[in-house]
Formats: sequence, C-alpha cells, structure tokens
Amino acid sequence: MGVHQYFKSLSDLEKLVRCPGKFKYQEHNVASHSFKVTKIAQYLGTVEEYHGSTVDWKRLYEKALNHDYPEIFTGDIKTPVKYASQELKQLFNDVEEEMITKFIEAEFPEQYRSIYHERLQEGKDETLEGQILSVADKIDLLYESFGEIQKRNPEPLFFEIYEQSLQTILQFEHLECVKDFLGAILPEMLQEKFIPRSELKEITQSILAGRDYT
Amino acid sequence: MGVHQYFKSLSDLEKLVRCPGKFKYQEHNVASHSFKVTKIAQYLGTVEEYHGSTVDWKRLYEKALNHDYPEIFTGDIKTPVKYASQELKQLFNDVEEEMITKFIEAEFPEQYRSIYHERLQEGKDETLEGQILSVADKIDLLYESFGEIQKRNPEPLFFEIYEQSLQTILQFEHLECVKDFLGAILPEMLQEKFIPRSELKEITQSILAGRDYT
Amino acid sequence: MGVHQYFKSLSDLEKLVRCPGKFKYQEHNVASHSFKVTKIAQYLGTVEEYHGSTVDWKRLYEKALNHDYPEIFTGDIKTPVKYASQELKQLFNDVEEEMITKFIEAEFPEQYRSIYHERLQEGKDETLEGQILSVADKIDLLYESFGEIQKRNPEPLFFEIYEQSLQTILQFEHLECVKDFLGAILPEMLQEKFIPRSELKEITQSILAGRDYT
Amino acid sequence: MGVHQYFKSLSDLEKLVRCPGKFKYQEHNVASHSFKVTKIAQYLGTVEEYHGSTVDWKRLYEKALNHDYPEIFTGDIKTPVKYASQELKQLFNDVEEEMITKFIEAEFPEQYRSIYHERLQEGKDETLEGQILSVADKIDLLYESFGEIQKRNPEPLFFEIYEQSLQTILQFEHLECVKDFLGAILPEMLQEKFIPRSELKEITQSILAGRDYT
Amino acid sequence: MGVHQYFKSLSDLEKLVRCPGKFKYQEHNVASHSFKVTKIAQYLGTVEEYHGSTVDWKRLYEKALNHDYPEIFTGDIKTPVKYASQELKQLFNDVEEEMITKFIEAEFPEQYRSIYHERLQEGKDETLEGQILSVADKIDLLYESFGEIQKRNPEPLFFEIYEQSLQTILQFEHLECVKDFLGAILPEMLQEKFIPRSELKEITQSILAGRDYT
Amino acid sequence: MGVHQYFKSLSDLEKLVRCPGKFKYQEHNVASHSFKVTKIAQYLGTVEEYHGSTVDWKRLYEKALNHDYPEIFTGDIKTPVKYASQELKQLFNDVEEEMITKFIEAEFPEQYRSIYHERLQEGKDETLEGQILSVADKIDLLYESFGEIQKRNPEPLFFEIYEQSLQTILQFEHLECVKDFLGAILPEMLQEKFIPRSELKEITQSILAGRDYT
Repeated sequence: MGVHQYFKSLSDLEKLVRCPGKFKYQEHNVASHSFKVTKIAQYLGTVEEYHGSTVDWKRLYEKALNHDYPEIFTGDIKTPVKYASQELKQLFNDVEEEMITKFIEAEFPEQYRSIYHERLQEGKDETLEGQILSVADKIDLLYESFGEIQKRNPEPLFFEIYEQSLQTILQFEHLECVKDFLGAILPEMLQEKFIPRSELKEITQSILAGRDYT
Repeated sequence: MGVHQYFKSLSDLEKLVRCPGKFKYQEHNVASHSFKVTKIAQYLGTVEEYHGSTVDWKRLYEKALNHDYPEIFTGDIKTPVKYASQELKQLFNDVEEEMITKFIEAEFPEQYRSIYHERLQEGKDETLEGQILSVADKIDLLYESFGEIQKRNPEPLFFEIYEQSLQTILQFEHLECVKDFLGAILPEMLQEKFIPRSELKEITQSILAGRDYT
Repeated sequence: MGVHQYFKSLSDLEKLVRCPGKFKYQEHNVASHSFKVTKIAQYLGTVEEYHGSTVDWKRLYEKALNHDYPEIFTGDIKTPVKYASQELKQLFNDVEEEMITKFIEAEFPEQYRSIYHERLQEGKDETLEGQILSVADKIDLLYESFGEIQKRNPEPLFFEIYEQSLQTILQFEHLECVKDFLGAILPEMLQEKFIPRSELKEITQSILAGRDYT
Repeated sequence: MGVHQYFKSLSDLEKLVRCPGKFKYQEHNVASHSFKVTKIAQYLGTVEEYHGSTVDWKRLYEKALNHDYPEIFTGDIKTPVKYASQELKQLFNDVEEEMITKFIEAEFPEQYRSIYHERLQEGKDETLEGQILSVADKIDLLYESFGEIQKRNPEPLFFEIYEQSLQTILQFEHLECVKDFLGAILPEMLQEKFIPRSELKEITQSILAGRDYT
Repeated sequence: MGVHQYFKSLSDLEKLVRCPGKFKYQEHNVASHSFKVTKIAQYLGTVEEYHGSTVDWKRLYEKALNHDYPEIFTGDIKTPVKYASQELKQLFNDVEEEMITKFIEAEFPEQYRSIYHERLQEGKDETLEGQILSVADKIDLLYESFGEIQKRNPEPLFFEIYEQSLQTILQFEHLECVKDFLGAILPEMLQEKFIPRSELKEITQSILAGRDYT
Repeated sequence: MGVHQYFKSLSDLEKLVRCPGKFKYQEHNVASHSFKVTKIAQYLGTVEEYHGSTVDWKRLYEKALNHDYPEIFTGDIKTPVKYASQELKQLFNDVEEEMITKFIEAEFPEQYRSIYHERLQEGKDETLEGQILSVADKIDLLYESFGEIQKRNPEPLFFEIYEQSLQTILQFEHLECVKDFLGAILPEMLQEKFIPRSELKEITQSILAGRDYT
C-alpha cells in the first residue's frame, strides 16, 4: 500500500508481452516498448523544434512514458473487441478510468494524486505532444512488424500491422517530423540488405580466391 | 479461408500465456490448460458415473475442450474489467458471440456450421457436464496457483487465485466428484513435502555415516 | 500417493518438449500436442458422422486425450531405436505396459483402476476411432513440420517428417475425413502466402503513392 | 547510415541482459531497465519539486532515458574490471566517448549532432538532475536484487548488490526524495508478505471450516 | 555427408535438455553438461596425479568429452526403462552401437573411422580414467540437483537424484579424488548460505543505523 | 571458499550468452561453446597427427577447455573496445591476470595453484596446440554465424563474423587440418540444402500423384 506498489508494478510491465497469441521471432514487452516510444518521441520532438515549433518537453516525455501503463489494469484487449461499438468503447474507457483513480488513491500520498491522475490520462490528444506520441507509438509498431517481416514471419497479421501503422502515421503528414520519417528514415529501412545464400557463396569464394581446395 | 485456418488457430492457443503481466516460475498456455481441464473433467465424470449419475461424455468432452477457444478472438481481458458492470459484461458477450459466428461462417463448410456454433458456445451451464467443467477449470487453476505458492512465488495474487478457486469449487459441493476432490485429492496436495535444507544435511550425513571426511 | 499424483503429472507433460535435440523456431509440448490432436480428431469424427459412419465419441476422445500419456514413464525414445527390431519393440512395449499398471495401482482408487487401464492402452487400433486417432496424430505432426518449413528451418529433418506424416495419412485414404483433409484442407495450407520483400516495397509505395518523399 | 540505424539499435537494448553470467529467476534487459529508471526519476523529481526545488524536467528525462545507451558500443564490462585502476577507467572512458562520437557522426544529420552528443554524455553529474539519476538507477537495481532475494535466489551476489545499492542511495541522503524513499517506500518493501506454507493450510481449513472431508 | 555433419551435430547437443518432463528452475543441456564433466574430471585427475597415480590424460579427456554423445542417436530414454531387464539393456546397447557404427561410416573419412569408433564407445570402464569419468558425471549431476534443492524445487525427484549420485560416488571411495571431494568440496557445498528474510531486515537496519526514517 | 566455488562457477558459464545485444535465432552459451571448440580441436589434432605431426594432447585439451573461462571475471567486453589501443589492451590483460591469480589463491589448495595458473593462461600461443585452438575457436564461430545466416538472420553482423572467422582461419593455412577443413568440410557446409517452398509443393504433389483431390 503505497508508492512501493507503484514501483513494483513497473516490473509487471516487463511481463506483459505485446501481441500475445501469435508466433513471433522476437518478443517485445510493454516496458521496453514504452522506452522505445519515448526515445523515438525525443527524436521527433527534436525535429519539430528544429523546424521552429515549440515543444513542451515535460509534457511529451510524460505522455510517452505513461501511454501504456493502464494495460496493467485492463490486460491486453484485442483491438476489434475494444472498437466493436462506440458504446462498448465508452464503457471500457469508463472502467479503465475508474481503475486508475482507485489505484492512485490507494497507493499515492495525497499531495501527488492530482499530478499522477494527469499523467495517467489518455495521452493522444490534439496537442503537438499528443500528436508526436501517436506517431512515435506507430513507428515502434512499424519497427516491430518490420522485424518480423524481415525475419520472414509467414503470419499475414504482421503485414497488416505494418500497413495500418503506416496509414496512421500518414494522418500526421502535416508534421515536420513525419515528413522527416517518411523522407529519410523509412527509405533507409527499406534498403536493409537481405543476405542471400548466393552472396554467401560469392564472399566465401572471393576470400578463398586463387586457392584450390574445392 | 477454411478449416485450415481453424487447425492453424489451435497453434495460436499455444502462444496465449495464462495470467500475463505477472512473474511466474512456470508459465502455462491456453492449449495446455485446455488439455488438463479435459483430463480432469474426465476423472470427475468417472466419479459421477460411479456414484450413479448419467454423464453425457460427448457433451462433457466438447465443453472442456472448447471452453477457452474464444480467447483467440478477444484476447485476455482481466476479470475485474469484464465484470465491472452487468452492462459491460452483456455488451462484451454480444461482441464475442458475433466474432465466433463470423469466424464459423468464414472458415467452416456449411454442413458443419451449426455443430461448431453449438460447440463454441459458453459451456458452463446448469447441466451436470456444465457443472463438471466449472469445477475442472477451477481445479486446474488451483493447481497452477498451488505450483507457484509451493515454489514460493512472493506475489499475493497467486494466493488470492488459490482461495477464489477453492471458493468456487465449494459452490458445487453437492457433486460427488467435488466431495471426492475435497476429501481425497486436496489433502494429498497439502501433504506435499517441502524439502528443508536441514533434511539435506541429514540425508548427506546418514549416507556418509561412520566415515570421517569432515 | 493418489489421484493428486495423476493430476500433478499432467503438468509434467507441459515440460516434455516434442522432437528434442533439434533447433526449432516454435517448440511444442506433449500437453499442447494432445489438445490439438483431440481437437483435430473432433473435426475428423464430425466429417465421418456426416458421411454416415457411427462414431463412438466417448472412445474417440479417450483415445486422443491419452495417446501420449505413457511418455511420462518412458521418456522420448527416438523412433529408429524403438523400431530397430521386432524383439526390442516387444520388450519395450512390455516394460511400458508394466509401468502403466504399476502407476495405476499405486495412484488410483480400486474402483477406477480397470477404467484407467483401458484408457491408457495403445489407442491406434483397427476401430474407426483408432484410425481417426492415427490420422489426427499425423495431421498435427504435419502442421508442426509445416510450421518449421514455412519459417524456413534449414534442417532437412522437418521435410522428412512432413513427408512421412503425409505418407501415413494416405494409408487411411479410405476414410471420408482423410479425403476431406486431402481435398479441402491441405490445398489451403499450401496456398499460405509467403510475404516476399518485394511485396513490402510495393505496399509501402502504394500507400505513399503520389507523395514525393524519396 | 542514418537515423534508422539509431532507431534499430533501440531494439538491441532489449537483447542486452542485465547481470549476465548469473542465474536469475527474472531477467531484465537494458531497455526495460531504462524505462523503469525514467519512471522512478519522474517520481523522485516530483517529490523534489513538492519540497521547493526547481527541477529541469527536460534534462532529467534526457539523462534517465539515455544513461545506459553507450552499453551498445562497449558491452557489459564487469565493474571490478572497469574500476581496477584510475588509468584503465580513464582509457575506457576515452574509448567510449570516441565510439559515441563516431556513431553520431555516422548516423545523425548534421543539424542534430551536437544535441545528441549532449544527450549521450555521462549523466550522473553534480546537478540535481544528475543526482536524481544516480538515485533512480540504484533504486531500480535495489528492486532487481530484492526481487531475487524475495524469490530466494541462493547467490550471495544479489545480497551484495542490494547492500551496495542502498549504500549509494544513502550518499544522497540530503535530497528530499531520498528521505521520502527511505522513510516511506523502503519500509513498505520490507513489509512484503512471504506466504508460508502453514498459512496455506490455515486458509484452506478456514474455507472448508465445519465441513468434514479429511 | 562428411565431417560437417559431425560438427553440425555438436549443436544438436545444445538442444538436448537434461531431465526432460520435469519443472526445473535452471535447465542444462547435454553440451554444457559434457563441458562441466570434462572440467571436473580434469580436477579429479589432477588430485589422483598428485597422490602418485598415473593418469592417461588423452584417454581421460576423450572419455569425458564423448560420454553422452550417443544420446544424439537414441534420445533420452528414462533410466527405469533402460534398466528394466538385462535383456532389454543388452538390446538397447546393441542398437546404440550399430547406430554409432553406421554414423561413423557415413560421415568420417576412412582413415579416422577406427579412432572415432574407439572414442564413441562406452567410457565408464574399469580403468582409472573410466572410474574418474563415473565420478565426474555424478558430481555434475549432484550439482544440478543441489542447484534445484537450494532454489527449493518442491519436486522430490531432485532429492532422489542427489541421494543416488552421492551413493554412486561413494562406490569409488577408494580413489583419492573421491576422498578429496567428500572431505573438502562437499562440506563447502553444504555450507552455502541461504539468505533468510530476517537477515535482509537486519542488514537494512544496520545500514540505516542511527537514522530515523521509519 | 575452495574448489566448490570453482565447480559452481562452471554453471555461471552456462548463463553467459555469446554475442549479447543482438537478436539471434539460436543462442549459445560459453560452456556449450567451450565444449564444441574442444571437440573440434580433437578432430583437428587427429588430422595433424595423421599427417605426421606430434600433438601434445594433454596440452591441447587444456587449452581448448579453458580458453574462455576468464570471461567469468571480466564479462563480455566488445572486441572494438578491447583492441582500441595497445595501451588499453595491455592494461586490460594485466587486470585479467590479476583477477585470475586472486581467484586461484582464494579457491584452490596450495598444491594445485601453479597447475591452474598454467591452465588459465592465454592459450593461443605459437605452439601447434595454440594454433589448433585458434582455428577451432574460429570454426565454431563460423558455425554459429552460418547457423544465423542459414536461418536468414537479417543482421549484417553475422555476415561480418562469418567473413572475419574465415579470414582468421586462412592465416593458419599452413596447417594440414586447415587444408582439410577448407577442402573437405567447408564445401559440405555450403552445399546444405535450403528447402524452397516450390519443392514442398512438388513433393506433396508427387506423394499424391495420380490422385485427384485438388
């Protein structure tokens, strides 16, 4: 009962596997994902600032760090369920909010409760920081699915996730950081070499060149 | 598109970890759990039959085998969320049912659809077989949590699960198989030896008895 | 000492990895395998029944659920060893049977012993249910090996397993359910898409179409 | 060849296991650790601010997020090696710095290089934010070692880590957030219940109270 | 077809888990076990030599390195099966030998075949080196089971393994190295500290001594 | 305090993962690697002896078994760090040597200390056995990287490791065993079949040949 419970709960995020129920070559957990989203958001904010926007860094970091914390209370509900109807979504959100409120009141000293209530709210709002979070969250998802596709995961799901992530990122095309991502980073990603077996033979032969062993 | 999708989905159940977001010494997946519940239900049905009840074995096996299959569509929603309100529970059940119907129509040949619709329905009804399923499901959960407690998992959650499972089993105390479980199997479980370090020293000394090495 | 030992042993089946000693992208355990075989047998029985055969469902489920349980006593003996000579196979079967008998007498109450002796016998006999079990067991093995081949496991063993499984299934070609599997399910399996890298580039370009970032 | 390499490297941090070469019940990776340190630093900063200090949040978050990123270049060098001599430590630091500089120049666009050079520097300086980072890093280490001790890891190393972490935290005793940690959070941690076997028997008996099964 | 197959097979030994079908806190594979047995045999041989015996080091290392290699051909057959009857044991041995011969003839150049046939034979003979192997194999098994007991694995099996290993070692009590193990190493092992929770409180309090936070 | 600490430390080598911080399909630990290097060195020594060289087998086995043991003291320091400057490398070697000396003096009885000091020294010297160790170490690394490339690990690092290992092996081209490896073993490795999907279709069709299901 207290902040210790909150600190301890961070470790539970390490045991929440993303995209459960599907074979993956490399598994990711919610704690690692949150770290990567925050680091990506840091870069995106840097690009925005360079192009003249004012970034509220404190707010950006808070949003990115905390955006998936409520999964501790709700578990991993599959998206199609969550969004099955406007009514269900609203009810889910109400329940989630109630659980967060209860947790904060049970574990945090009174003087910090309103601060944490603010921090654990839905972060993807219309502010610049909320938009950057939306983009950063999808960039990490894009990388996760790209990693599976590149390792040749035969499950079509990862291809769908890749596509939907990219579609969502495109909705924020007005941001400088999205232009930077699409114009500079994505092309590099697509240029990643796949090492074909033929190349392995060639390199071996070129190393052995002029020698006669085979 | 077809029964292949259904066969393939069975493998997804192997990737659904039970009780995500918590450290466990031994992880269990939904496919293994379903197997164990069916085997336990088999024993419970055998006890009922011995005491004169008529067991519809076909129905019992169907219920036990399929009772967690819908998690493929919904993911693992934490119980407190699911039961937060009667309204939410109802809406959630509607969504689940709709998803199952869609899946059956997309993947199964017409002649088998009504059979599979029957099979994938909620199995824990008032019939003897439905009650046996309820008990078998909780016995496996009891064993899962006992396994963690015995390995000294410090997380109180597993203690709560143990307690709630036992409470639920008790609600079916009128069944002969529950009397058998409480009177014969549970006491054995509680007699499991913990090997204390002192015993290790003793056994070592008794093996080495009369020899002088130390 | 008692049914608790039997319930506890189910968890040991979760720790028995199938096909040990070989690198696999996705590992399977004997409990999960038994679950999948039973679910597949359920479908195959449904097809048989639809075509007019009488299925003894109780017997079918018992056979499928228990067909690998004796591995708890014997461990995973490689097939070439087991079948090295008729004499060895016979001796081995005798030992296995003796171990099962001993276990049942040690752990089960007297009134259930003959039932469990029946249940834990070799299930792959000449009955319709025995034949369905043989097919279901090989279909799951086919899926396991297909999963490795599709993920491009370079080990030829999985190709051999795929081939041998299919050969065995063909020996039951007279069954309606085998005709259904070969005519409807296997072709779907072979149509599974591999996502080539080129397709990834195309989808990305089509999403970005008309925009000029690269 | 660009920021893509930087984004991709974040995933390598997920594959860097902390405290390699020792048996642990629960493994942690550098990405998850960085997330937890940043969340802990957030709480500590909140406490400092409440007590009247001015926290540079942007700086605090940058320090916490990036404090272990250089391990990507150097690997996990055991502490006794690193600190074997002042000369060796200096040489190691020089090499590390050179590697970071090279990486930034190879992967980042010119306009962001100085920003990232600043971000990837040693963060544990004399500023309030540097001190909070030192404390947050040790609090997470304390939790990691406490988790092992609580699960009864017999390796004395985790006891030593616990002790050293606490000693280091004490060096920052002048901070309000350290007083808060020592006075409010640590005592809660030490009150965590261990569930003794005797309690399991009691709870079972109290649930079954008045019934006669045994 | 050739020595490449032999080199590749070494990696299969890394995928053979020891003592399958049982929950273990720390799993061991046959490759790692073989390494440890060889290192332990090295120490035991050193002790024998010190006490005046002549050790054929080449033979000792060959025996230790190769003693479990045949498991690649046979899989992990549970001991009670293997030793169920003298007849079965003999038949198993014949099959194993035949498989080894076939493998050597298929993969090794003619000039090395007799050498490898010698190396892959049963190593636990009556020579000093054979006896040291028997002891070293059991010492590693003792350590594996001690590791589980110390981590409080509730499965009685590990206690039985500990006991049987020690019994077997005692049969070689006439060896100097066994006297050394029993007199010097085993007592150290039994003195390993378990860190009780009470000690954790004490150390914390002594670190915080004189300060008033609680 | 004593040889028990040394025996126990062997198990730590099982928890040291090779090439940390990179996604790998199959992980290897230092204990397993040491085993494989020793087995490979055994083969290489056999080839040398066949061609008339005198092999000091005791020395060869000692070198191979112990070549990575010092990683227990130093951890896994990335190669570019280690070799950044001659000065750093020297200092690092001094620290390593000092740690080994300390360990031997703390744990080994006096009569065995000089023997173990000899055994735990850098093994890759100019002797035939030192050269065989250098080659065997790189052959196992070549196999590890080949395993990743064959499983299509998209990380270029494994291609670089493959190339560098082969380059190093070539530096020992004057050895008969290297000629054997390059002329007989490496070509086999490169002939390993990749099972293309098309082949799967063909084999399926040839098994089903003449039957009409599709």
